[in-house]
Amino acid sequence: MAVQLQRPHAAVVWFVLCCLSGAMTVPDPRQREALMQLEASMQTGGRMLLTDAERRLDDLLFKMKQKEVMRPDFPPAMHFFKARHLIRTSQIFQLLQQMPKGAALHVHDFSMVDVEWLVKNVTYRPHCYMCYTDIASVRFIFSSQLPKPLPRCSPWILLENLRAKLINATELDNSIMGNLTLFTQQDPDTVYPSQDAVWDKFEQAFLAVWGLVTYAPVFRDYYYQGLTEFYMDNVMYLEVRALLPEIYELDGSTHDRTWTLKTYQDVTRQFTAEHPDFFGARIIFTVHRGINISMMTAVVEEAMKLHRDFPDIMAGFDLVGREDKGRSLWYFRDALFLPSERGVTLPFFFHAGETDLEGTEVDQNLLDALLLNTSRIGHGFALLRHPLARSISKKNEVAVEVCPISNQVLKLVKDIRNHPAAVLMSENHPVVISSDDPALFGASGLSYDFYEAFVGFGGLGFHIGSLKALARNSIRYSSLAPNQQEKVLALWQRSWDKFVSENDLF
Amino acid sequence: MAVQLQRPHAAVVWFVLCCLSGAMTVPDPRQREALMQLEASMQTGGRMLLTDAERRLDDLLFKMKQKEVMRPDFPPAMHFFKARHLIRTSQIFQLLQQMPKGAALHVHDFSMVDVEWLVKNVTYRPHCYMCYTDIASVRFIFSSQLPKPLPRCSPWILLENLRAKLINATELDNSIMGNLTLFTQQDPDTVYPSQDAVWDKFEQAFLAVWGLVTYAPVFRDYYYQGLTEFYMDNVMYLEVRALLPEIYELDGSTHDRTWTLKTYQDVTRQFTAEHPDFFGARIIFTVHRGINISMMTAVVEEAMKLHRDFPDIMAGFDLVGREDKGRSLWYFRDALFLPSERGVTLPFFFHAGETDLEGTEVDQNLLDALLLNTSRIGHGFALLRHPLARSISKKNEVAVEVCPISNQVLKLVKDIRNHPAAVLMSENHPVVISSDDPALFGASGLSYDFYEAFVGFGGLGFHIGSLKALARNSIRYSSLAPNQQEKVLALWQRSWDKFVSENDLF
Ligand SMILES: [Zn+2]
Ligand SMILES: [Zn+2]
Repeated sequence: MAVQLQRPHAAVVWFVLCCLSGAMTVPDPRQREALMQLEASMQTGGRMLLTDAERRLDDLLFKMKQKEVMRPDFPPAMHFFKARHLIRTSQIFQLLQQMPKGAALHVHDFSMVDVEWLVKNVTYRPHCYMCYTDIASVRFIFSSQLPKPLPRCSPWILLENLRAKLINATELDNSIMGNLTLFTQQDPDTVYPSQDAVWDKFEQAFLAVWGLVTYAPVFRDYYYQGLTEFYMDNVMYLEVRALLPEIYELDGSTHDRTWTLKTYQDVTRQFTAEHPDFFGARIIFTVHRGINISMMTAVVEEAMKLHRDFPDIMAGFDLVGREDKGRSLWYFRDALFLPSERGVTLPFFFHAGETDLEGTEVDQNLLDALLLNTSRIGHGFALLRHPLARSISKKNEVAVEVCPISNQVLKLVKDIRNHPAAVLMSENHPVVISSDDPALFGASGLSYDFYEAFVGFGGLGFHIGSLKALARNSIRYSSLAPNQQEKVLALWQRSWDKFVSENDLF
Repeated sequence: MAVQLQRPHAAVVWFVLCCLSGAMTVPDPRQREALMQLEASMQTGGRMLLTDAERRLDDLLFKMKQKEVMRPDFPPAMHFFKARHLIRTSQIFQLLQQMPKGAALHVHDFSMVDVEWLVKNVTYRPHCYMCYTDIASVRFIFSSQLPKPLPRCSPWILLENLRAKLINATELDNSIMGNLTLFTQQDPDTVYPSQDAVWDKFEQAFLAVWGLVTYAPVFRDYYYQGLTEFYMDNVMYLEVRALLPEIYELDGSTHDRTWTLKTYQDVTRQFTAEHPDFFGARIIFTVHRGINISMMTAVVEEAMKLHRDFPDIMAGFDLVGREDKGRSLWYFRDALFLPSERGVTLPFFFHAGETDLEGTEVDQNLLDALLLNTSRIGHGFALLRHPLARSISKKNEVAVEVCPISNQVLKLVKDIRNHPAAVLMSENHPVVISSDDPALFGASGLSYDFYEAFVGFGGLGFHIGSLKALARNSIRYSSLAPNQQEKVLALWQRSWDKFVSENDLF
């Protein structure tokens, strides 16, 4: 049955919510239908008003989805690494790529760009040195002269020289690429048998990328390329979680955090000027949760300063790194309460509940994030198991940033149909869809994650109203001020209407 | 932190439920602690009053669980077939075996007894014939003379004769055993790559068992042995879903459904008389959801009659068989509404929501089961995605029968920590734990499923209060009349106190 968007009769709503008996004494198709509609209307986008053209597009999507669900190789039930080539040829995916998706609110600084670009563009630049670590990863540095050797790494090799000796660099390039991403053609469950194994590789890939992207010319280009990839995927605004590291030049000199933040601002302005249908980006300053309390205090002080000095680009603050192994939010409470104690605004966008360790100290991060007045929750995978945190998140409209592919690759969920966001969205809990570290997962932009959401945990019940609501949520729950949100929404609506009419076959 | 069972301060409850801001301006450990306690108190058993001895046992359990969670080979994260030998040596499991668990409310007639008993006892009885099907399964029949050949099966072989020719029957016995259960020593995901594959084997194993257990002498013994296995696992009452098939004798004559039901009654009475700390069993008459409407109407008529004539043993009615491939409850609505139209009592105990096909017609079974006034819901795996059905189930105390191992083996969930019952129990939704078809899954009794619940989806947050609540729920949500429930509860409390004091090391 395609979606019926009339609101159920008020008497039925009253009957159900007030008296909730449910049981019939004779089969009553009208009462049953009303209850089904009432339930459908409770989900995210369940009460969205649709134009006739949108309804026609929804019929098309529904038929496509019915076919997709019948496939024996149903992509959302498979690991994304195995499903990716199937998704790419899916008609639904192709429509989702074209669809204006609004904003990407949970993306990390150094995993925005397809790793092929890093290999084919960046490592082919002059002065690029590489060494092999003793656990078969790689490290890079750009340098005008032979760099000092790294501990636990082979002597530095100048890639220009190495490639000059090779007849064909394809094998080398592929092997480099394999070190920059988790994606593999092999069986992912064999390569990464446990959460520990996949997080180990995650860190190695991150360190491998590091030397490439913290080189000043690459840093600018990488970010520009990242905006391009999201823009090409019909995303119009980003909030990038960024470590704001020292950025180095060829002679080894470095730039400080302010320079890095300013560079983000410059490149964003340039990109936005060149693409009038793109709105821009803001930065959420992040720090690794492995640091100690005094360092955290200093970082929070700096974050407050940056937020004061760069209010346009700087959206707020967050902690990164694997929650299960890192320090909890409560551990850092004295540092994290500094802004509110001083009456200074520093919005938080905490990762919390990216865990399946129920009942541990780390599992308290969800409640603590809310006590710290977080603006959104990164992942919130464990939120369903915390009814109180869930109520507060819903009541205060603290949106959950849902990143389905990330959760699957990092082994929190196997079959995307069982993703907890299905439950959150069945009750219109505030959520947005994002992609976390797309390049590390072999994805890009937002479309793959939208596919997993729409076809996977959305089941047959999610429709075009759900998609519209997700796009609108991504604007509404952004860090932008209300008047800016209005502008983005208007810009999005234009693109959306164009998308709908271009796909209207009637 | 071990469980704190004081109720949170009333002012905090008021603050949270009424104003739900949550956010603090300074770190306030007392407010945080109160919120954590409030959340913990919301879960199943979260407000259970505990004796000092129970608290001491809880400390012991908590320490054991902390150790268990740290294991790299954490059993609930693994397929049960691979985890079983680890669970057997777990101290928590051994305690759960001793623990009086109350009632098993969701168990099927022909999967109660370890298949080793079927092979070593039943197939060694005289007159037992076996044939091999053309898809490498087996069929059995007891007969005083050579039975008529079965289509698509080899000629009948008298097992006495076959075994007489073998020096060692171990290999034959093992191969028979492998045909009677899904359990395998091989990699379960390779043997059963899909839901279709595992359900196919399910049906074959069921058909293989059929000829053994529908032979009158075996039928009695099997049921007696089934009660014994649950009794030995410290279960004191059962509600058995039973097909009530025709039962045959050696000469090929058969007994009707009434005989079968009476035999259940006789054996139950005999067993209960011999075991005064066992309370008994009742039968839920089940029929396959593959039949047509006129057959369903006839079966419902018969069920009403049996319920009237055998009120002690006959608890109610249900449909069985794979929901995804079978007919929906609504399809059978005219038959299933017969009792209420006639004003006749026939309690329903419908399987519903044992699916991950969200939004399909089968997925409506949950709401329809409630509209049909079901007394409990079998599985309800999809309940979280149906907020309205979930509210009705909670408000009307329609308990969900949670069978974690069944859901994992039949490929609805991979890591038991992600089982939806974690969410249901976090809000004290009425649930009971059961084992569905333990023999088919290589389990027995209830303890394995209690282990998966307590250590798996229970995380560190479930404590002895949760276990106590689950045992009490199994009595409270049984089909027994209130005065009988009081009796069982008193019987259970005696066993429970004995269990607690025997494990009190102080
Ligand atoms: Zn992240
Ligand atoms: Zn069942």
